[in-house]
Amino acid sequence: MISLGEARTRILDALTPTPAETLPLPAAWGRVLARPVLSRVTQPPADVSAMDGYAVRAVDAVEGASLAVTGIAPAGHPYLGQIGPGEAVRIFTGGFVPPGADAILLQEDAAAAEGRVRVNETVKPGRWIRRQGLDFAAGEMLLPAGRRLTARDIGLAAAANHPWLTVHRAPRIGILATGDEIALPGEPIPSGGIVSSNAHALAALVRAGGGDPLVLPIAPDDSDAIAAAAAAARACDMLVTTGGASVGDHDLVQSALGPEGFTLDFWQIAMRPGKPLIWGRLGPTPVLGLPGNPVSALVCAVQFLVPALARLSGGPAGPPRAVPARAGVALAANDRRFDHLRARLETASDGALVATPFPLQDSSMLKTLARADGLILRVPHAPALEAGAAVEVIPLGELGI
Amino acid sequence: MISLGEARTRILDALTPTPAETLPLPAAWGRVLARPVLSRVTQPPADVSAMDGYAVRAVDAVEGASLAVTGIAPAGHPYLGQIGPGEAVRIFTGGFVPPGADAILLQEDAAAAEGRVRVNETVKPGRWIRRQGLDFAAGEMLLPAGRRLTARDIGLAAAANHPWLTVHRAPRIGILATGDEIALPGEPIPSGGIVSSNAHALAALVRAGGGDPLVLPIAPDDSDAIAAAAAAARACDMLVTTGGASVGDHDLVQSALGPEGFTLDFWQIAMRPGKPLIWGRLGPTPVLGLPGNPVSALVCAVQFLVPALARLSGGPAGPPRAVPARAGVALAANDRRFDHLRARLETASDGALVATPFPLQDSSMLKTLARADGLILRVPHAPALEAGAAVEVIPLGELGI
Repeated sequence: MISLGEARTRILDALTPTPAETLPLPAAWGRVLARPVLSRVTQPPADVSAMDGYAVRAVDAVEGASLAVTGIAPAGHPYLGQIGPGEAVRIFTGGFVPPGADAILLQEDAAAAEGRVRVNETVKPGRWIRRQGLDFAAGEMLLPAGRRLTARDIGLAAAANHPWLTVHRAPRIGILATGDEIALPGEPIPSGGIVSSNAHALAALVRAGGGDPLVLPIAPDDSDAIAAAAAAARACDMLVTTGGASVGDHDLVQSALGPEGFTLDFWQIAMRPGKPLIWGRLGPTPVLGLPGNPVSALVCAVQFLVPALARLSGGPAGPPRAVPARAGVALAANDRRFDHLRARLETASDGALVATPFPLQDSSMLKTLARADGLILRVPHAPALEAGAAVEVIPLGELGI
Repeated sequence: MISLGEARTRILDALTPTPAETLPLPAAWGRVLARPVLSRVTQPPADVSAMDGYAVRAVDAVEGASLAVTGIAPAGHPYLGQIGPGEAVRIFTGGFVPPGADAILLQEDAAAAEGRVRVNETVKPGRWIRRQGLDFAAGEMLLPAGRRLTARDIGLAAAANHPWLTVHRAPRIGILATGDEIALPGEPIPSGGIVSSNAHALAALVRAGGGDPLVLPIAPDDSDAIAAAAAAARACDMLVTTGGASVGDHDLVQSALGPEGFTLDFWQIAMRPGKPLIWGRLGPTPVLGLPGNPVSALVCAVQFLVPALARLSGGPAGPPRAVPARAGVALAANDRRFDHLRARLETASDGALVATPFPLQDSSMLKTLARADGLILRVPHAPALEAGAAVEVIPLGELGI
């Protein structure tokens, strides 16, 4: 058995980002940039007014002065003339400051009548002018490669005049549930069987992590079926299996996939839930074999699949985000396996997060996992803790997981 | 001018969730349930083994005993016989416990040879058996209406045997950017104009909030064009405009949309960035008029559009999530407008979040907004604060915004 951290490092080290593709700007939201975005324009493109008012020469615009209004400069319609002594131009937010003007007289500090404007408050040079390039200049690097694009980034790339962006392809993840005893929802349930939840839960998790899931037909526990389904997944960036990773079955997967070119890296991790886990490669395709138990499969997915998706997507990849919290109850000492206690999270009156594990932590209880707000992390051999002690928690629910 | 909180309340009070639709299970991820999910099965469907080993009668399975192995019960293949005195059945995790057995002998506590198994450690009654219904029972309410479905919920609904889920339709949001001076990325930029960033930034934000954006053609500042585009948006659950909400333009929008059945609720909010904001209704369609300034538009979208999307989607809706942080620098006293300082967030060595505003907070700086990790909230007339004082921050980046 290897440690959870070593397992994740070996998984991440074996993965490389998907190749780049070019997408129309709106489709790039949530993707990771494969090339940086350099601005193609300067913003603002010229000195512009920050307010509605009058473009003036500050030297003229002293309290009590009266200026001749010679034109108008709304946004998008520059005034083409020059402002001379004693003159002003009506201007609106975003309007280009006309040549000759060096300040803006706010409209609330002005009184307009019959083609003239009276200055009610002396104006300082440069006031209420946004300088050309205040936001960014042509050629400036605005968004680095490796950044996952937010809605704000999409806006920034638009403002920088990019109709297309070069991003990493969404990783295509094949998902193969194995087992004689499972049926898809709504299909006849075999005698002694249960409804399969892993494939579609993992597909949703792959979508949440920015991947593109391909749910393969359920494979019974049969070498040929496993090999055939695995072959179908060779077009994928990664194959995720569930089931078939426990003692004995591990041999089955190996014997089935060995002739197909399967090489095993490791297959057991000192963690709970989730000890049996396979990591290897089927020809060029990385294979992550998750446990068949739905809770184990999802906890392993949070620890390994979500970081793997981040790496494949081209973004920064590492452990799932954990936050400090206080234990809501006393916690028993842990054994040698890294444990994940399904817990409710609440905010105490002092603002601190309080994590309280559900009383029953049986790894078969999917309902408990679905209702959990987070996973309390208990490292191997962690000592017993009193209620109120500091713990680390992976918040679930973030990112739709 | 009305307060930010009153504005949000009036917006949310005017909105109702979209009608329900039925989706295949995998497509329901991220949607909000319109009907609760009641389990159609009991899980586990019978008493099952929690481990690999032997199903035994505890009364027989004392240290040193030797039991006859009469059959095998893997998951999905129940043993059809009864376990009698002195008998055991080989069983695997998830296998149904055969009638007569009342405990599981772990395989690591057993030695098998020639059709018999030797008990190396005495077994307690009930040990390693997961009782029928431990996770959930048929008829049990597993997921309530109003819940936004996570990947774990999709798994739970699958396990409860639901191939279809009834969810609220994704709200269709029409997005109308107005202005003479704007061009879409890659198109010829008019003299004095700029590249429009609002429509696609807002479309991405609508997607991030679970909505379905419909980007309308840019409308020049012209009454007929605005009215025509607004008409195109009547099929939407909400129309979002940008630009056309400042002084004067406000009259234009009203005069243009009045004959179309536009009724105004309010149009100015005591906030920064983002004072000019229109809220009203065009016939049956709610209309949110955001400022034309991209930073103002996005900050207003975080405060009003994201909650509106949550309400339209059928989920709980309220203020955006804010978290406590420490001010990284001293903050000046605030005026009467609710302010949003674009800030970097860092975690201090004691685990606390530290929010440091960018030195320049000009509302035209989209680059600064894109690089911000959060918005420091400064309520109206908030006093000056020293560095290290407690502040509230809306973390950005969550949910792809």
